[in-house]
Amino acid sequence: MSLLDNIVSTGRFIGVGVGPGDPELITLKALRLIQRAEVVSYLANAEGGSQAKTIASEAFSGVTHGQNEIAIVMPMSTDRTLANEAYDAGANSIADELRQGKDVVFLCEGDPLFFGSFAYLLERLEEEFKCQVVPGVSSINAASSALNHPLTVLKESFAVVSGRHSAAQIDTALEHHDSVVIMKAGRARPRILMALRKTNRMQDAQYLEYIGRENERIVKDVSTLEDKAGPYFSLFVVTKSERGTR
Amino acid sequence: MSLLDNIVSTGRFIGVGVGPGDPELITLKALRLIQRAEVVSYLANAEGGSQAKTIASEAFSGVTHGQNEIAIVMPMSTDRTLANEAYDAGANSIADELRQGKDVVFLCEGDPLFFGSFAYLLERLEEEFKCQVVPGVSSINAASSALNHPLTVLKESFAVVSGRHSAAQIDTALEHHDSVVIMKAGRARPRILMALRKTNRMQDAQYLEYIGRENERIVKDVSTLEDKAGPYFSLFVVTKSERGTR
Repeated sequence: MSLLDNIVSTGRFIGVGVGPGDPELITLKALRLIQRAEVVSYLANAEGGSQAKTIASEAFSGVTHGQNEIAIVMPMSTDRTLANEAYDAGANSIADELRQGKDVVFLCEGDPLFFGSFAYLLERLEEEFKCQVVPGVSSINAASSALNHPLTVLKESFAVVSGRHSAAQIDTALEHHDSVVIMKAGRARPRILMALRKTNRMQDAQYLEYIGRENERIVKDVSTLEDKAGPYFSLFVVTKSERGTR
Repeated sequence: MSLLDNIVSTGRFIGVGVGPGDPELITLKALRLIQRAEVVSYLANAEGGSQAKTIASEAFSGVTHGQNEIAIVMPMSTDRTLANEAYDAGANSIADELRQGKDVVFLCEGDPLFFGSFAYLLERLEEEFKCQVVPGVSSINAASSALNHPLTVLKESFAVVSGRHSAAQIDTALEHHDSVVIMKAGRARPRILMALRKTNRMQDAQYLEYIGRENERIVKDVSTLEDKAGPYFSLFVVTKSERGTR
């Protein structure tokens, strides 16, 4: 190792939320960091497509320098071993760039630290490298805006569960909280509809998928919703029908 | 009423989230709507100061046309009657502009529909006027970013309560959920510290105030926090110390 290698300080690993889908819901801070980045990284599917990168298209259109990209290909599987292998490989590639003194900006849909993949990279890199996070607009907030309906008012209680949770956990949330968001409904949709029926909250629920994108779909009466699996980026918003706001 | 009055269509009432405090955490959409607005409205204190307007300073610096402003002065009181009078008066002023065919953009800290004041104006105006909401980055997401710490991973459950909730409600949330955010701690801080001790979660908790602003303060060991009232914009983030992320 030469003296020069020693004085090159390591880069920063920066998780950046790009928001829930509408390219205009990216923050000024995210835009600036993506545009200036020497290296950008993101999750991609087997075909190399990345929703996070698509959302951040405006930032990329302003990039005038050479920018390395690290696409972390995530297998479509519920097997955590495969996912962890992909995160391991991705973290290694990112670490290589950081050790060369380059900052790496990782793009995250929604907010990086809220039910997101960024946490798995952060835990692999935070001991060795300086890490930083830029929050983004969460799909939860995008959902209530798309419905034009307050998620919470005054003393209402609020909980978030996801399609990963057990039927019992979803039931408990629906029974104990005024407002409940059920994220990442995806394949859990039939189980969630059953929970809504069981807890007598079908009429309180609304369903959304691909919020703010061209294929956005909103179902205000969930009794009309097909009882089958839906896309990963879909969610239910459950609020009280009668509210005391004054 | 002349024929002309009849053909002027009413304006839109648009709630716009300006984010949690850092002026760079405003979205491109919020920036564009504020810059183009004919009328902007916001909550203000008795001295006319408005945190939402201060956060959106970059947008205002780009305004080149005459822009009407409606400051809704909110009394510092827990009396809902006084608050409702202020919202009534504000909604009337906004309605006057909307009836003249002007769009009115209302600035909201954080996200407009998440524990925010916008809901009270929306309910007063949504029957007569076309209303629209632009989500913003919530203080919840800003808090986990400031702590560089995931709010939720995988199957963790998550709930939000606020200083408005009863001691029993806060205890229940702390007992039943892996992650809990307690918003608007303010004067409820001694009560919240008691609940954290009672539910044995003092070591899981961190405290933040004025996130992303110049006077930001983060207390990672809440046993060192003064047992007295704090600012309205303060919150506790409670997460599990041991997490299974793989």
